[in-house]
Amino acid sequence: MEKKDKVSMAAIRRLPKYYRYLKDLIDRDVEKISSKELGDIMGFTASQIRQDLNNFGGFGQQGYGYNVKELYGEVGKILGLDKSYEVVIIGAGNLGQALSNYTNFEKTGFNCKAMFDVNPRLVGMTIRDIKVYDFDDIEGYLETHDVDIAFVCTNKESAQDVASRISNTCKISAIWNFAPTDIVTPEGIVVENVHLIDSLLTVAYRIKD
Amino acid sequence: MEKKDKVSMAAIRRLPKYYRYLKDLIDRDVEKISSKELGDIMGFTASQIRQDLNNFGGFGQQGYGYNVKELYGEVGKILGLDKSYEVVIIGAGNLGQALSNYTNFEKTGFNCKAMFDVNPRLVGMTIRDIKVYDFDDIEGYLETHDVDIAFVCTNKESAQDVASRISNTCKISAIWNFAPTDIVTPEGIVVENVHLIDSLLTVAYRIKD
Repeated sequence: MEKKDKVSMAAIRRLPKYYRYLKDLIDRDVEKISSKELGDIMGFTASQIRQDLNNFGGFGQQGYGYNVKELYGEVGKILGLDKSYEVVIIGAGNLGQALSNYTNFEKTGFNCKAMFDVNPRLVGMTIRDIKVYDFDDIEGYLETHDVDIAFVCTNKESAQDVASRISNTCKISAIWNFAPTDIVTPEGIVVENVHLIDSLLTVAYRIKD
Repeated sequence: MEKKDKVSMAAIRRLPKYYRYLKDLIDRDVEKISSKELGDIMGFTASQIRQDLNNFGGFGQQGYGYNVKELYGEVGKILGLDKSYEVVIIGAGNLGQALSNYTNFEKTGFNCKAMFDVNPRLVGMTIRDIKVYDFDDIEGYLETHDVDIAFVCTNKESAQDVASRISNTCKISAIWNFAPTDIVTPEGIVVENVHLIDSLLTVAYRIKD
């Protein structure tokens, strides 16, 4: 982990894929795996696997390969999954509700504590034990609760305003943004955009080929 | 466009971002823009902008910059948005419903015609004018309707079976997969995975820094 500063974002973005595949291997009771075998199932070369994992300290043993459970634990630690994260969802429409329903997130340590919306028909509802609050109360909520990440599931027009208001409280560490626009936050608040339309447009391009 | 074969996937994946920003510029009545100005708002260097757009034929004029509307049209054509696409959604849970509700997709030319599910409580429902059919009828539906893309919004366990069944009909061109697993399709059927959990794990990593 001491080498982390030198690791490229591209390598970091591959780590969650390792984490997913290693979990599948554990579920299938695989105890050890070579870089060649891991590469084959992940679609990487063995040398890419070794290079990626060397970035983070190198966990393999020559002639043995990787201990799957150990590597899974180490990759989890590198990703920061040895702790859990408190989450709020801004925008309680279909997408916000879909994200609140992902048990996979909770299992991985992301616990959704509250949802917020401006729509009076949604405010006050309870969706899968998660209460929907009025977005006007967001500052008060963030002052009195520990929240690490806000999932922003609003429309494009509201997303920046929402991001600015929650950033101003200095109470969150990151925004996971689903609105189809690139939002800006003060330094120190991580923004990760999920632009679904970009992915769909790539599908169209690839069909056309 | 004749240069397309040489264009890297990384450059292609940047195109939807151009498309989004150019649309915003049109909405703000901006008629022309230099590569420097476009780079500033998109977070790219001017030289990156010129290089990307040169890949696809180069639309700028020295000393003038780019005609925004023209460039938007050209990028749209390169992406394959001069035609529309018929879509079905497999899995009519919250996420499937959220995607069916994205008017942005429809505006861009992706028309959702039907949803499919195995849950008898959902089959027969109509969600925003879109009927939910029994997934057991998928083959018959694909035989009798033109469908370009299937959005797969099932759980991890069902995703590969679903993908195999719809691929076997040879009636679709692409699968846009939201299930948290990498699905495999026969050659000729494009798969684009949206692994939300991978993006969320990247957030955790970046917070930790």
